[in-house]
Amino acid sequence: MKKIEDCTVGLVGLGLMGGAFAAALGRIRAGRVLACDIDPAALRAGVSAGAIREGFSSPEGMLNQCDLVFLCLNPSSLIRFMERHMADFAPGTLITDIGGVKTGLVRGIEKRLPEDLDFIPGHPMAGSEKSGYAQSNQCSFQGKNYILTPLKRNKPENVEFLKSILFRMGFSRITETTPEDHDRKIAFTSQLSHVIAAALIDCESDPEIIRFGGGSFEDLTRIAMLNVPLWTELFLENRLELLPRITQFQGSLEKLKTCIAEERRDALEEILQTARDRRTSLI
Amino acid sequence: MKKIEDCTVGLVGLGLMGGAFAAALGRIRAGRVLACDIDPAALRAGVSAGAIREGFSSPEGMLNQCDLVFLCLNPSSLIRFMERHMADFAPGTLITDIGGVKTGLVRGIEKRLPEDLDFIPGHPMAGSEKSGYAQSNQCSFQGKNYILTPLKRNKPENVEFLKSILFRMGFSRITETTPEDHDRKIAFTSQLSHVIAAALIDCESDPEIIRFGGGSFEDLTRIAMLNVPLWTELFLENRLELLPRITQFQGSLEKLKTCIAEERRDALEEILQTARDRRTSLI
Repeated sequence: MKKIEDCTVGLVGLGLMGGAFAAALGRIRAGRVLACDIDPAALRAGVSAGAIREGFSSPEGMLNQCDLVFLCLNPSSLIRFMERHMADFAPGTLITDIGGVKTGLVRGIEKRLPEDLDFIPGHPMAGSEKSGYAQSNQCSFQGKNYILTPLKRNKPENVEFLKSILFRMGFSRITETTPEDHDRKIAFTSQLSHVIAAALIDCESDPEIIRFGGGSFEDLTRIAMLNVPLWTELFLENRLELLPRITQFQGSLEKLKTCIAEERRDALEEILQTARDRRTSLI
Repeated sequence: MKKIEDCTVGLVGLGLMGGAFAAALGRIRAGRVLACDIDPAALRAGVSAGAIREGFSSPEGMLNQCDLVFLCLNPSSLIRFMERHMADFAPGTLITDIGGVKTGLVRGIEKRLPEDLDFIPGHPMAGSEKSGYAQSNQCSFQGKNYILTPLKRNKPENVEFLKSILFRMGFSRITETTPEDHDRKIAFTSQLSHVIAAALIDCESDPEIIRFGGGSFEDLTRIAMLNVPLWTELFLENRLELLPRITQFQGSLEKLKTCIAEERRDALEEILQTARDRRTSLI
């Protein structure tokens, strides 16, 4: 198996996630870490922090040097990037991405992928309400989940290699599944949560309301400080999975509301007890 | 003004909150801390930890020794307790409570209150998804909010004294308002958040879903591990404030859902941007 210590690793995009991968690659002593970004300030900051060896304003000069490439771009930019730069990778390159919606993306890339490139789609379940390279130290991988949706054509040894370095970076649970299953589940755990947070904040414009916060409101709404263009994309791209999840949540909410309105104490206690037990078992 | 160092302080109820107050009173060097509870194990644990000087299985023997009493009971028990034990307090005792719904409670107690007792209703915006004395070290007061809904008849020096010791315990922001305003705002920041968390957990029974969590789902649902009888009470007691807040949230959620369903990218971005800006300003 390859050793990460001998690899040249390229980061396409040095924002919040690219920056977090750069730092993690440094911690696990990757051979050389390169990055390309349209923002020269991010590249300069990455070089001066010692997080990347060299920065590239366009990917052509970087991609052909890399053994492993992390595509740290928004979903909509990912397909366009791969369409444009498929020929710039060196043969045998292991490529992975961090796109938060997988089905359309994986199909779009797979059908154009040359035989000598191994693209393993991935989704780190780590992030932050912050964005940009300067905030990337706010994004920890420690103990976080990672989802891979490998292609049938992926080389097993490359999947194992990628998993081994992700574990070394701190991710504690790596799940392999299909792009469709990923999108169905992520619509619930990630996108629905963000829709709820935004809807909750949408309800109240008085800034003094925070004086009445006891932690739960703050926790529920922290992710309303989201990266707006990214999450708009994720919601729209995965809307066919997200919309039924919103509807399902509306049903559960209405059920609770009815119990409260009709003062059905026993039914309310039963729902809350089930919720409590279920959440307690989720570890 | 009184000095807390010279006071005998009584805790009625040595559960999660009573235990947290006992520890905080110790840190600020209260003269003597006593507690009564129906659970002898909690009292023994409190004494052996040095958090309380003495435990009482019934309040009669304790209340008449106290300068200051914290009523750390569920809302429904509070009125009953005060009805039963009004005559057991020493004249001049400063009494405060921690009830999470105030209007009915404050009216219920105020109308029966003898002239020589000063009852200052309060609500510490601190808690935990844990419950019971053994977990009370999980409940931190540091940097938390506190709401007081003083009565017209309260002695100003007693209100100032209570506030001064709450600040010393670590609470950083104390808001004085009416019981009605408290209940209206708490319905939003606290009860609605708990209803949402329970509804979200209600949507999914697969325990493996946690493998797809990225932090936001975990944050939104942590409070679903609630104290079931307490929160059932709070929801029902404050239902006239809570129900319109649920309806309002349903409206905001439906608005977001419609933007997603109709792929109205600009409208969606605008709502998300407003939510982001608004949440960012809440500190």
